Amino acid sequence: MTFADLWRDLAPLGRDPVTGGYRRYSWTAADAQCRAWFTSQAEKRGLTVQPDANGNLWAWWGPPQPGAVATGSHLDSVPDGGGFDGALGVVTALAAVDLLKEENFYPERAIVLLTFTEEEGGRFGLPCLGSRLLTGAVDPQAARELTDDAGVTLAEAMASAGLDPALIGPDPALVGHLGVFVELHVEQGRALAPMGCAIGIAEGIWPHGRWRLDFTGQADHAGTARLGDRRDPMLAYAGTVLEARHAAASRHSVATFGKVIAEPGAANAVCSAVHAWLDARAADEVTLSETVTDIRSAAKRLSVEHGVTLGVREESYTPVVRFDEALRDRIAVVLAAAGMPAPVLPTGAGHDAGVLAARLPTAMLFVRNPTGVSHSPAEHADLSDCEAGVRALALVLRDLAGPQ
Amino acid sequence: MTFADLWRDLAPLGRDPVTGGYRRYSWTAADAQCRAWFTSQAEKRGLTVQPDANGNLWAWWGPPQPGAVATGSHLDSVPDGGGFDGALGVVTALAAVDLLKEENFYPERAIVLLTFTEEEGGRFGLPCLGSRLLTGAVDPQAARELTDDAGVTLAEAMASAGLDPALIGPDPALVGHLGVFVELHVEQGRALAPMGCAIGIAEGIWPHGRWRLDFTGQADHAGTARLGDRRDPMLAYAGTVLEARHAAASRHSVATFGKVIAEPGAANAVCSAVHAWLDARAADEVTLSETVTDIRSAAKRLSVEHGVTLGVREESYTPVVRFDEALRDRIAVVLAAAGMPAPVLPTGAGHDAGVLAARLPTAMLFVRNPTGVSHSPAEHADLSDCEAGVRALALVLRDLAGPQ
Repeated sequence: MTFADLWRDLAPLGRDPVTGGYRRYSWTAADAQCRAWFTSQAEKRGLTVQPDANGNLWAWWGPPQPGAVATGSHLDSVPDGGGFDGALGVVTALAAVDLLKEENFYPERAIVLLTFTEEEGGRFGLPCLGSRLLTGAVDPQAARELTDDAGVTLAEAMASAGLDPALIGPDPALVGHLGVFVELHVEQGRALAPMGCAIGIAEGIWPHGRWRLDFTGQADHAGTARLGDRRDPMLAYAGTVLEARHAAASRHSVATFGKVIAEPGAANAVCSAVHAWLDARAADEVTLSETVTDIRSAAKRLSVEHGVTLGVREESYTPVVRFDEALRDRIAVVLAAAGMPAPVLPTGAGHDAGVLAARLPTAMLFVRNPTGVSHSPAEHADLSDCEAGVRALALVLRDLAGPQ
Repeated sequence: MTFADLWRDLAPLGRDPVTGGYRRYSWTAADAQCRAWFTSQAEKRGLTVQPDANGNLWAWWGPPQPGAVATGSHLDSVPDGGGFDGALGVVTALAAVDLLKEENFYPERAIVLLTFTEEEGGRFGLPCLGSRLLTGAVDPQAARELTDDAGVTLAEAMASAGLDPALIGPDPALVGHLGVFVELHVEQGRALAPMGCAIGIAEGIWPHGRWRLDFTGQADHAGTARLGDRRDPMLAYAGTVLEARHAAASRHSVATFGKVIAEPGAANAVCSAVHAWLDARAADEVTLSETVTDIRSAAKRLSVEHGVTLGVREESYTPVVRFDEALRDRIAVVLAAAGMPAPVLPTGAGHDAGVLAARLPTAMLFVRNPTGVSHSPAEHADLSDCEAGVRALALVLRDLAGPQ
């Protein structure tokens, strides 16, 4: 099966027919289809698939042993996300195994294909949930209590999918088997296209986090409540959105409000509450902290001004990640030797590779994104670039898992 | 059954146990419960209940004939609305019938209790839907095609409730039976409390309308899309919210954004679109028009600034209403003679009485709202004031339906 065949096979799963975007949320029917698809494809290649207690899937080529060379990514999506984010890393890993087998390669160190659970935080709000649980970067009890927008807890969702939520948490023995992790991902942003390169290598990941802001006012009648008597949380929220843009622009960081819920959401009533989610990222942690502090201060000031109470909760925070330099240089040499120059790029996007980087040498490959758009149905990568990604990943796996 | 007994009986229907607010949306299970309750209570009083083709309920005391004296209100609610808005007019009507019967009164002109469908526009977005359909103030085909947030059309919702949506529309014969309509309603706003009066009489209703604004941008990754490359509809929306407040304040009108939907609504993605609903009202139509023009201009300017496209659609518009002066004076005399001085008040809230006012002499009674809050679980009226409302309504019905 070629990369294109694999890609065509996976493409319909979890795709919304109206928006064309993906809704692969963890522990839903679409998620189960994706898991079954990966398991079936891995087993067709003779790999041994073992889910861990956190729902991450491990497909082993060779006996599980310390020093394993890991690759893979995730199959979940943001709401109406693109088809490449995550899935490209999983499908290229399967195709790279095919390529290595065609070349009669057999790994001296085991190769393991990983598919992580809820990388996007699209259902339970905590990105990289599967890799954080695996490595102990999140408290299992806190994770079990995470809820989706319908109030379903992670524990309930996992139980209904047949897993025992009591067992989630760190697995040092399993992590100890990993010698190195290389995650291939579609480029997010547009740095490779102007350079004329199909493949890039990650330098590091900007520190980033997610904050929930709850503005609580007083519901009232949109026709009869005088402006001066209102405690309208929408006004405090709207002001905060604009202040966040200003704060980010002035510090060369990014800040986004992409999710907002107005309660009760009646067209003819002043809201009782507005719940909003701030995503903020910056090149370094001090700048990120200053950006978020500016935004929180503005939200507080605007809330006081409008008679609204403000609650702010950090839902996730990921410090700056610098990928392993020796591994990065080794990969660059391998690709250059094969005639694939791969520039080194920073990124503002979080990844499971960023979580694993705290535990083992980790690297990322990027496949050119001609428009730079991601987290959107418009996300795209050309087939020829995806195939270059397969070749690049196979070269790297051969180098890392072959005779040293 | 006293007013308090009736009130206690109706109170649990459609109430959300968490928020304490009401979710009585038309053609839902809660709505069916409310209809069954009203029908049962009316029949217990010997009234003949006849639904019209638009789902409004008519409970006749005396044979249906031209010149009937109508009262009543609605039982639907805004999302998480209070218990008094609408329901108070229905329950006081039932209790007023009890009071008149205790006094051995029998109407010379028929009295009819009306319960209108979807007064709030809480499900299908068009306020006073039942009275507009009845009087021909909305095109039946346009009404059939109205959709709720889940995409269900009014036609589908009515069909699933057992009504034939092909039959909706004006009923001049039925409207021709109405000689006069008096709607009792909880006060929205706080004018009566400082005057020390339990009951007020409506002067008129401010012109008001509802506009849907669709800001469409480009979904993108919250971490990797540079601020300058974004087409973020949330920024245009947020700016419009603040401009709307400014426009309303400067013209002594009111403007509210109480409902907003961000798509796709991912915390880590720039929105593709923001859908928002503007409710605007003013003392006169010129001022309302100027207010809305200001807001639309601001939304357009902000959309251009952020690379976003803007669509604006008027979902409803209600011209200024002046209630019948002769009827108002007659009611004031009746109440004053009974020792219930009732000041005349304007209101910014729309009502079915405002729709019927275009066809027949119409009046409204208000029952004091000590906080002024409405469209909120915190909406309240004291029991003694509600009981005063029953007495006032009975006095008015006796005067209008008794010997002339």
